[in-house]
Amino acid sequence: MTAPDSRLSINQATIKHADLAAALRVTVEAGVEAIGLWREPVQEVGLATAATLLADSGLRFTTHCRGGFFTLPEGLARRAAIDDNRLAIEEAATLAAAAAEGSTAVLVLVAGGLPDGSRDLIGARERVRDAIGELVPDAAAAGVTLAIEPLHPMYASDRAVVSTLGQALDIAADFDPAAVGVAVDTFHIWWDPDVLNQIARAGRDGRIATYQVCDWRTPLPADVLLARHYPGDGVIDFASLTRAVSDAGYRGDIEVEIFNERIWADAPANVVRRTAETFGSTISPHLPAKPGSTP
Amino acid sequence: MTAPDSRLSINQATIKHADLAAALRVTVEAGVEAIGLWREPVQEVGLATAATLLADSGLRFTTHCRGGFFTLPEGLARRAAIDDNRLAIEEAATLAAAAAEGSTAVLVLVAGGLPDGSRDLIGARERVRDAIGELVPDAAAAGVTLAIEPLHPMYASDRAVVSTLGQALDIAADFDPAAVGVAVDTFHIWWDPDVLNQIARAGRDGRIATYQVCDWRTPLPADVLLARHYPGDGVIDFASLTRAVSDAGYRGDIEVEIFNERIWADAPANVVRRTAETFGSTISPHLPAKPGSTP
Repeated sequence: MTAPDSRLSINQATIKHADLAAALRVTVEAGVEAIGLWREPVQEVGLATAATLLADSGLRFTTHCRGGFFTLPEGLARRAAIDDNRLAIEEAATLAAAAAEGSTAVLVLVAGGLPDGSRDLIGARERVRDAIGELVPDAAAAGVTLAIEPLHPMYASDRAVVSTLGQALDIAADFDPAAVGVAVDTFHIWWDPDVLNQIARAGRDGRIATYQVCDWRTPLPADVLLARHYPGDGVIDFASLTRAVSDAGYRGDIEVEIFNERIWADAPANVVRRTAETFGSTISPHLPAKPGSTP
Repeated sequence: MTAPDSRLSINQATIKHADLAAALRVTVEAGVEAIGLWREPVQEVGLATAATLLADSGLRFTTHCRGGFFTLPEGLARRAAIDDNRLAIEEAATLAAAAAEGSTAVLVLVAGGLPDGSRDLIGARERVRDAIGELVPDAAAAGVTLAIEPLHPMYASDRAVVSTLGQALDIAADFDPAAVGVAVDTFHIWWDPDVLNQIARAGRDGRIATYQVCDWRTPLPADVLLARHYPGDGVIDFASLTRAVSDAGYRGDIEVEIFNERIWADAPANVVRRTAETFGSTISPHLPAKPGSTP
């Protein structure tokens, strides 16, 4: 059995039912070098303990998932969301500082959907930009990059009013690339006729904060949030997307993030092993050769 | 009870379980002036009979649904699809000629999804353009406008590799606007950050062949094809979209096309009445005043 690709990072959502200690353990035991964490399991043990566990694992830390939910109009709930994002920035900075060399302090942002009863998509999008503007000083001070994640347009009403990579880059353009970048997730953007141009633009602008992969397959499940598959099990052309991300200059870790009831029901160790295998067969062949490796 | 808006057209899919004669009858009885037809119920009675029934109804004919499915590689199945589209063009021309003054000969085209086992989205899109190029002489000779319909990106893999209005307009740009236009359907494009610009562009280019309305609401049903709702029952901002279509110069009939199991289970006469009511409350207020009407 070959070792997993050194650039593979397991996003913790892929092994949703493992707590933080278990997630770290199965990832290390599979020979994977990096992990992306979610806020809930970190908060479950407390930030200080999470940072210690992560440091002890020897894994690189790649993203913290997730902040955002910025579409509410001004008021107490919006203030609470902004404050919670400040906490998430602090978590991301703490975890990245504790983890192995090569870690990145990236907080993934999901924009949020239309507020209940609202049809004002344009207004909601403006409030996302405003919220990011409020958080940029905190992110810059903490050395954290906020990664705006465009979500598939089927989530535009109830989860994320940012639907394309181009739109995410338009928002990011107002801010320093060290503070605001984008998340390039194949599941959300594979269908976009302009995706290759926008990936190139993201590279030119220095905005690719994370590259995440998983596959798209139909029919969609009843809960369309859980429609994600192992790379290779669907229709996404990982060759063109992965080469575009590499050509755009991205050399960081690559997360596999899968929400799928069937995969969650499997043992986490199996899932990590299968993730490494599918990453090796569908993503690795399209990455640039590592320095010093034989072609 | 007020009369339905004179620009309302009932797309036959909204009353799917009515045969052609019943669809025409309930539409006329509701005081609606126009209808869009589907190929299957037309073929069920035969084209000549369908044309007679339509002429006798006194209704305007607005679109024929639908052609397309152009993504297969060269071979017998692709040839059969092209030939079937030639037949659909002939049907559209015959029906439009038979129907009341003010009818339009428009054939709506759904691009088709990725062929089984293929991940080549770019190639599939090129084959759509090629197929339209093959059909343009037939459409021009018959006086039919082919309306490329971008479908929501959640259908990109299994139904339509044309996902945005901008992409549809890019394809149409190669051809005479009399022969190739676009279908502007709120359900498919409401989420697009560039939608208002692209509607304006469609108007400038003379490409708006039909404007279709229905609403988007979550959660999506298990079969996401059936996720369409009466205007006003969801989150789409019909004010901005309808004004944009009017500002772009479109003055034609406006179809309501709904796929929804619950609505299909209702009596067709109820559905047409409810459609006219929701059109009157959500679309009519945003249309330009009719010549001679009191503001």
